[in-house]
Amino acid sequence: MIDFSNHDLVLRDSDVEDMRALLRIPSVSADPAYAPRVREAAEWLRDRCTRAGLEHSKIVESAGHPSVYADWLHAPGRPTVLIYAHFDVQPVADPSVWATDPFEPVFSPDRVIARGASDMKSQLLAALLALEDMLGERGALPVNVRVLLEGEEEVLSPNLRGLLTSIRDELACDFAVSPDGQQSLTGRPRIGVGSRGFCDLEVAVDGAQGDLHSGSYGGAIQNPAHALANLISGLHGADGRVAVEGFYDDVVVPSAKERGVFEGELDEIAALGAALGSFGERDWSPWERTTLRPALDVNGLIGGYTGPGPMTLIPARARAKLSCRLVPDQDPDTIRALVGAHLERHAPPGVRVTVTPGRAAAPAYRCPPDHPVVAAASAVLRQLSGGKEPELELSGGSLPVQAFLLAELGSYMIAFGFSCDDDGAHGVDEFHRLASFTDCRAAYRMLLDTIGERGV
Amino acid sequence: MIDFSNHDLVLRDSDVEDMRALLRIPSVSADPAYAPRVREAAEWLRDRCTRAGLEHSKIVESAGHPSVYADWLHAPGRPTVLIYAHFDVQPVADPSVWATDPFEPVFSPDRVIARGASDMKSQLLAALLALEDMLGERGALPVNVRVLLEGEEEVLSPNLRGLLTSIRDELACDFAVSPDGQQSLTGRPRIGVGSRGFCDLEVAVDGAQGDLHSGSYGGAIQNPAHALANLISGLHGADGRVAVEGFYDDVVVPSAKERGVFEGELDEIAALGAALGSFGERDWSPWERTTLRPALDVNGLIGGYTGPGPMTLIPARARAKLSCRLVPDQDPDTIRALVGAHLERHAPPGVRVTVTPGRAAAPAYRCPPDHPVVAAASAVLRQLSGGKEPELELSGGSLPVQAFLLAELGSYMIAFGFSCDDDGAHGVDEFHRLASFTDCRAAYRMLLDTIGERGV
Repeated sequence: MIDFSNHDLVLRDSDVEDMRALLRIPSVSADPAYAPRVREAAEWLRDRCTRAGLEHSKIVESAGHPSVYADWLHAPGRPTVLIYAHFDVQPVADPSVWATDPFEPVFSPDRVIARGASDMKSQLLAALLALEDMLGERGALPVNVRVLLEGEEEVLSPNLRGLLTSIRDELACDFAVSPDGQQSLTGRPRIGVGSRGFCDLEVAVDGAQGDLHSGSYGGAIQNPAHALANLISGLHGADGRVAVEGFYDDVVVPSAKERGVFEGELDEIAALGAALGSFGERDWSPWERTTLRPALDVNGLIGGYTGPGPMTLIPARARAKLSCRLVPDQDPDTIRALVGAHLERHAPPGVRVTVTPGRAAAPAYRCPPDHPVVAAASAVLRQLSGGKEPELELSGGSLPVQAFLLAELGSYMIAFGFSCDDDGAHGVDEFHRLASFTDCRAAYRMLLDTIGERGV
Repeated sequence: MIDFSNHDLVLRDSDVEDMRALLRIPSVSADPAYAPRVREAAEWLRDRCTRAGLEHSKIVESAGHPSVYADWLHAPGRPTVLIYAHFDVQPVADPSVWATDPFEPVFSPDRVIARGASDMKSQLLAALLALEDMLGERGALPVNVRVLLEGEEEVLSPNLRGLLTSIRDELACDFAVSPDGQQSLTGRPRIGVGSRGFCDLEVAVDGAQGDLHSGSYGGAIQNPAHALANLISGLHGADGRVAVEGFYDDVVVPSAKERGVFEGELDEIAALGAALGSFGERDWSPWERTTLRPALDVNGLIGGYTGPGPMTLIPARARAKLSCRLVPDQDPDTIRALVGAHLERHAPPGVRVTVTPGRAAAPAYRCPPDHPVVAAASAVLRQLSGGKEPELELSGGSLPVQAFLLAELGSYMIAFGFSCDDDGAHGVDEFHRLASFTDCRAAYRMLLDTIGERGV
C-alpha cells in the first residue's frame, strides 16, 4: 500500500470501540428485514455526532431508510464544506464463506474484518473523529462544516434526490468531500473526480404454472432456465459490446486531453483480478472499459433446484438481477428502458418475460480537474505521502450523491478516502487496515486546515 | 380422467391410515439430510410387508439408501412376478409455494395432497394392499410374487445395479410389473413399455476468489454468471437441436412400424403445457421430442446475489445442474462425457469451468409390444375401462430399474400404474386421486389373477 504515514496520529482504544460499535450493527439497506438495524445505525450516529461537538444533529427521514444531518457553522467568512458518507452496508450473500461473522468485527494487529469495514464505516468514523478531535483541542473548526450521512448508498440512493430537496437549505456549501474512496496499493495517491452512473432491473422468465417433470416434457417445452440463459447471453455480442439497441447512443467519447488528465493505473487492479480485460469491448483498454465506457452485468441469477443431488424438473421460473454502469451522457431511465425492451423483445415463444425496473438511477458524474477542492486535497496527499503526486481518478463505481448534489445545489464533490483496492468491499471477508483509518483521520484534519488557510 | 371403475372396491379407513402414515415420512433421497427418513420409510414398509402376509421381508442395504425385499413363493408351477415400486420422493424445491405442508397429507373427498402422493407412495400401497387382501381372503396368491421397493429411484438409482447383483437369486422372475405409471386424462388406457435413459452433471463457473465490486470491474472482467449463461445457451442450436458434438451419433431412428405401435396421444399433455412444442427439434413432433428423441435440460441454476434489492457484485461463481434424457442406443456415460467435454471446451477466457459428473446413469429401455405381460395387462385395462383398447406408451421419464433388470436377469418390466398426467408429480401441490388408488388396488388383483389363469 502507499505510505501515507507522514503524520503523528496513532490508533486509540476509543477508535477501536467506535468501530466495533458501528460495525456490529448490520445496517444492510438492500434487505427490508434489516430496516430497523439501519435506523439503529442512524440513531447511533446522530448521538455520536452530538457527542463529537457537532450541532443540529438529527435523523432526516426519506421515503426509504433515514439519513443523519449535523453541522458546525461558526467560521464566518470561511468556506462551508459538506462531508458526505454513508452508514449502510452491502448484504452478505453467503455468510458461510466468510472466515468470521461479518457483523462481529475482528481486530488483528493491522486490520479490522467486518462487513462495512472498508465500505465505509471506518472511514466515516475517521472523518467524524477528526472533527471531534479539532473541536476538542481548539474549540473550533477551521471551516464551516455540514455532515450528511446517508442510509441508502448501497442500494444506489433511490430516495436521496428527494431528501436533498427536502433539506436543500441545510446543505448549502461551497463544495463537498467524501471519505468513500479507495487508494491504490502501489501507484500514486488518488483523488476521485468522477463516477459512473447506475441503473438496475430484474428479469423473470415464467414457463408453466409449476415445475414440470423433465422426463415428461424435456425436449418439447421451453425451459425458463434455458430461456433466461439465452436472454443473458444475448445481452453482449461476440465483440464484447453490449448488444442492446441504442445502449451506446449517448455515450460521450472523451477527448485525448480528458483521457490524459484522468488516465488511471490499472496495474494493481489487474493484479487483483488476474482475468481483467478478459471481457468487454476489445477496442478499449481494461482501464477505459471500467471508467470511460459503460457496462452491463448480471449480479445474480436463480432458477429451479439448486440443492444437493439431482432433481429432474423443468423450472417454472428463472430470474436474474441486472445492473448497468453508465458514463456521460447516458440517462439511467433511458438505458433501463432500452435494456428492458431488449429483453422483452427477445422473449422466446413458450415463456413470459417480465422486466421489473429497479429503484436506483443516477447519471455519471465529473468534477472539473482544476476545481480548488482538488488542489487542496492534492496538497494534503502530497504531504501525507512524502511528496507523491496524486492522480485524478474516475471511479468505475457509482456515488449517486455526486450527480444529485451537483444538480440540486450546483456543488461539486470529490472522493477523498483511504480504503485500499484489495480490501474486499462488497465481497467476502471485507476488511480495513487500521493504518488507513489513522491516515484518514489525519487527512481530514489537514484537508479542513488547508481549505481554511486557502480560503477557497 | 379415464373411467376405470368397473370393479367393486371402495376406499377404506385403513387405506387412508396407511397412506397418511407413509406420506408423512419425508423420504427425500436427493438430500443427504433426509437419509434417516428414507430409512424410516424402508423400515415402515418392511414391517408393513410382513403384516400384509409376505415373507422374508427385509431391508436390503446398498452403497446409498436402503431398499426393501419381500416375497410369497407358494404357487409352484405358476409364473413368478416381480412387483417393483419406490418409496423415496422428490425434494420440495420451495415449500412456501405449496398450498399445504408437503409432508402433512391432506385428504379431500376426492384426493390426497402430499409430496409422493402420485409418485408413488399411494400406488405402492395400492399394489401391496392388493396382495394383503388376496392373502387375507384366500390364504394364497394366484402366482409367485417377489416385491422390490427401492429407496433411490428419484435420484435415478445410482446404486441399484449393484443392489440387483447382490440379491440376484432373490429377484429371479418371469417378468416384472411396476405401479410407477400414469394414465391419460382423456385418451386410451396406457401400459408403459419403454422409458428414456438418463445421465446428469453439474457445471460450475468460477471467476475471482470472491465476489467483486461491479463498479470497479464491470465491463472488463468475465462475469461467471454471463459465462454460465453463454455455456447453457450454447448447448442448443437455433434449430432446437442439442449442439453437443456427437450427442445424436448413437440415436436409433425408429422404423415407421415401431412408431406406429408406440404412437402416443399428446393432446392431454399439450393441454397441461400450453407451450408444448415451443422448444426442441423442429423436424419432430412434440410427442416424438419427449419419447423417441433425447433431450438436455437445465434443472437448476444459481449465482451471485438473489435476495431483495440490488447488490452490485460480479459473482465469484455460478453453477447449474444439467440432465439428459436418452433414447436407444445412447450410452449414458458416453453422453455425460460428451456434454462435459463440450462445456469445458467452450469455457471462455477469464473463468474456470468445472464439470462434476452426476452419479445416476441408465440407458433407455423398451419392452417388446408382444410380450405376454403386455397382453395380460391389456386384458385388465380393457375390463376395468369397460372395453377401451389400451395403448402402449413410451415414457419420456426414466425408470432405471427396467434397463438394469433386463441386463442383470433378462426380465422385462412394464409400467402399470394409475396416477394421472395432471397430478403434479415432481411439482408443487402433488396429489393423487382416491379413485386412482382403488382402481390400482383392483387392477393388481385382476392382473395377478389373469397371469395365474393364463400361466404365462
